[in-house]
Amino acid sequence: MNTLESLIANLSRLPGIGRKSAARMAYFLLDSDKSFNESLADQIQYLKERIVSCSICGNYTEDDPCPICSDNRRDHSVICVVEQAQDVHPIMSTNEYQGVFHVLQGVLSPLDGVGPEDLTINKLMKRIKAGGIVELILATNPTVEGDTTALYLVNMLKGSGIKVSRLASGIPVGGDLEYADKLTLARSLRGRTEISLP
Amino acid sequence: MNTLESLIANLSRLPGIGRKSAARMAYFLLDSDKSFNESLADQIQYLKERIVSCSICGNYTEDDPCPICSDNRRDHSVICVVEQAQDVHPIMSTNEYQGVFHVLQGVLSPLDGVGPEDLTINKLMKRIKAGGIVELILATNPTVEGDTTALYLVNMLKGSGIKVSRLASGIPVGGDLEYADKLTLARSLRGRTEISLP
Repeated sequence: MNTLESLIANLSRLPGIGRKSAARMAYFLLDSDKSFNESLADQIQYLKERIVSCSICGNYTEDDPCPICSDNRRDHSVICVVEQAQDVHPIMSTNEYQGVFHVLQGVLSPLDGVGPEDLTINKLMKRIKAGGIVELILATNPTVEGDTTALYLVNMLKGSGIKVSRLASGIPVGGDLEYADKLTLARSLRGRTEISLP
Repeated sequence: MNTLESLIANLSRLPGIGRKSAARMAYFLLDSDKSFNESLADQIQYLKERIVSCSICGNYTEDDPCPICSDNRRDHSVICVVEQAQDVHPIMSTNEYQGVFHVLQGVLSPLDGVGPEDLTINKLMKRIKAGGIVELILATNPTVEGDTTALYLVNMLKGSGIKVSRLASGIPVGGDLEYADKLTLARSLRGRTEISLP
């Protein structure tokens, strides 16, 4: 296999990239500046060395603890529990959340052999035992595994006196009732919010 | 901008890759084998050094002349003229074509200031003058620029005694008459092929 073919083969291993997109990317790289290719190559080569998991929350970071955990202006009494480090960015970009995070590094999935000991649940419990936590927002995905994991955490936190909440699930903004699936619609009914009349 | 952000910014400069796909790719690279990242980085870094243009046809190649030009089992009396080096692969993969190629490195586009001297037309004429060419297949895209370029070549080749053809343009296989645009339909009518009755 020649250089171009093996580059295309590697690029098409990236998520969401088929052979045609990979070929398009490879030809783009052939035509682009040498400096762009070198900077991209450097970033890919040293990515895993430069980025580590935050020792407190498990988020991806270059400095340990991560900028979120070491930011004193944030509310360290509220922890948002997410499945993966990539879930931190979308929540941060809403500008709605002022607390800190905890990355579970996965979800409970008995079928795949993922139990509580495979996640960072123990670490989360230690953070809670250390005190100062008022609220836990369970932001696992609204899937069977995400719901199971949230339920498991709720059971563990019984009697702890901590306020526990779950992200609202329902019809997305701009969505259409007509095309919403039954489960989503059922959840959005169950989670309906009261509107106070003026 | 941190490491992850700048990688995502660079990845989203690739064709067809938006910010979300770039982020997905970056997280994939964070989770993937170190060896995969290193091989991909190496391929990107040295791509432009390892791959050159074939001095005969202009195709991308590691060895000059390219494997197609140096293959004696191919028919060197037929040249397929394409716009870009990336057009060679799709034609080769049809297994229908046994000749060689000529890459124009672009199309005539007066609006963008691309004239005949910016393309490899002189080189093509030299190949033809050197003799032994029987047929020229004009495989520029069926666009205004591609058609103009084909017409320009046809005019240049007048009286040369070389058989000149153009790739058929029409409804794609699996396509639908109902959704075909007027121009495509008009071309497929003009280029209709006779069926000999048994």
